[in-house]
Amino acid sequence: MARTIEEVRRAVGAARREGRVVGLVPTLGALHAGHFSLIERAREECGLVVVSIFVNPTQFGPDEDFERYPRPFEKDVAGCEGHGVDAVFAPEAAEMYPEGFCTEVQVKGLGSVLEGEFRPAHFAGVCTVVLKLLQIVQPEVAYFGEKDYQQLVILEQMVRDLNVPVRIVGCATVREQDGMALSSRNAYLSAEERARGLAIAHGLRAAEAAWKSGERRAETLCALVRQELQGAELEIDYVAAAEPETLKPVEGACGKCVLLVAGRAGRTRLLDNVILSPEV
Amino acid sequence: MARTIEEVRRAVGAARREGRVVGLVPTLGALHAGHFSLIERAREECGLVVVSIFVNPTQFGPDEDFERYPRPFEKDVAGCEGHGVDAVFAPEAAEMYPEGFCTEVQVKGLGSVLEGEFRPAHFAGVCTVVLKLLQIVQPEVAYFGEKDYQQLVILEQMVRDLNVPVRIVGCATVREQDGMALSSRNAYLSAEERARGLAIAHGLRAAEAAWKSGERRAETLCALVRQELQGAELEIDYVAAAEPETLKPVEGACGKCVLLVAGRAGRTRLLDNVILSPEV
Repeated sequence: MARTIEEVRRAVGAARREGRVVGLVPTLGALHAGHFSLIERAREECGLVVVSIFVNPTQFGPDEDFERYPRPFEKDVAGCEGHGVDAVFAPEAAEMYPEGFCTEVQVKGLGSVLEGEFRPAHFAGVCTVVLKLLQIVQPEVAYFGEKDYQQLVILEQMVRDLNVPVRIVGCATVREQDGMALSSRNAYLSAEERARGLAIAHGLRAAEAAWKSGERRAETLCALVRQELQGAELEIDYVAAAEPETLKPVEGACGKCVLLVAGRAGRTRLLDNVILSPEV
Repeated sequence: MARTIEEVRRAVGAARREGRVVGLVPTLGALHAGHFSLIERAREECGLVVVSIFVNPTQFGPDEDFERYPRPFEKDVAGCEGHGVDAVFAPEAAEMYPEGFCTEVQVKGLGSVLEGEFRPAHFAGVCTVVLKLLQIVQPEVAYFGEKDYQQLVILEQMVRDLNVPVRIVGCATVREQDGMALSSRNAYLSAEERARGLAIAHGLRAAEAAWKSGERRAETLCALVRQELQGAELEIDYVAAAEPETLKPVEGACGKCVLLVAGRAGRTRLLDNVILSPEV
């Protein structure tokens, strides 16, 4: 396990000199089956798989859950070993943000809508730390979950705009049997909150069913989701239909869109989404 | 000569596979002896020297000289050939900023003082384009002139903060016989403006002489510079004493500092600086 930038670079450098393709799976830890699906995909495609575990302070707002974010570190490391990860990079905050640190990367526009409205500094924190990880590890491929769909779109834009020589791969959301999207934050939910939170997956499933039956109007699809959320008395932050590549709002009939939802059960924010396309 | 990112990457990739160390000299073109001194330094240290020529629109303000910035392109390319440059990268703006481009890199604090007060978006433009060039070319070393001292400090900070695997090398300012710092913008000056602009170099030289005689008070050193500028009726944007690494203002006696000057002769802004240390 690498605690320092120098250590992880040494491990990666050796593998690269042997001609192995390097894959990176950046995480905040609290690993679940969603993370492990990214790791498995990386193992299929790469000769060296690096998982970073870093609860990045700069992507949390002042009133958010940085302090209580779950940190089951030993279990995470064991899980990485069990899934054939070659190197875990788990730096301290001071290694990533030494005194005097003052650089920020922003994807303007994309970073201030939807989640960005509710978490104003969030994506700047995400972009900056992911760019750092990409520079430290220099992977050929980096893996992210579609569960955080806006994050995925923003990181793809950042990498394209800055010409970072890496391929970003988005992997399908992993769900519980009942449809609930896996998230490290699900650990915060009481049984009652979880039951209500499930309305998000139900709403998205209802919208997907309507799409399959031929419904194409963004407003109608969103209304179906909203209805489920309201039925469960979930606080809605947003239910939005957007173009999958640009996140521009979609109105009226559409040939392809992503439905994005953020709701709150108690103190816990829950995100989910579904991509609706002719192939669905 | 490479016009596209793909072309320059191909040229660099081939050299890298041969084990050659890659050096990058980013420029806006209008090359003069200052640029050529960077190129010569790169030639001494690297096996492949890439010069980029790109008048980057995003680092110019709306009322600045982007349109009239000199673009003696054929002459620049010939100069590069004459100085043994291996590859010139001269992209069009659309190659660097395709439609939808929206990412910005900022070095906060450092980018908003001194030049940043007079050119608010300047350093974000510089940082973003330099980071792009570093990702495109992936040089081991990149060369910048000390003439744009604040830019050099900011780029060093950016590269350190983002863990970009490159060494930034700052090279001494090249001057005319009479002391005038070389700058592509000197081409804008009438003979009369140039004569007045020379007061900046004279003022810095006077401050350096005082330093050598034992003067250590920042205020006194700045006053000596200011006096020369006022004598020449130059418009002063700032005369400042700062810590060389952090650009924090220096007051009172100091063991080491950089004196930074920006003045205007007619419509032309002129920058210069001198580093004062025990070794001077």
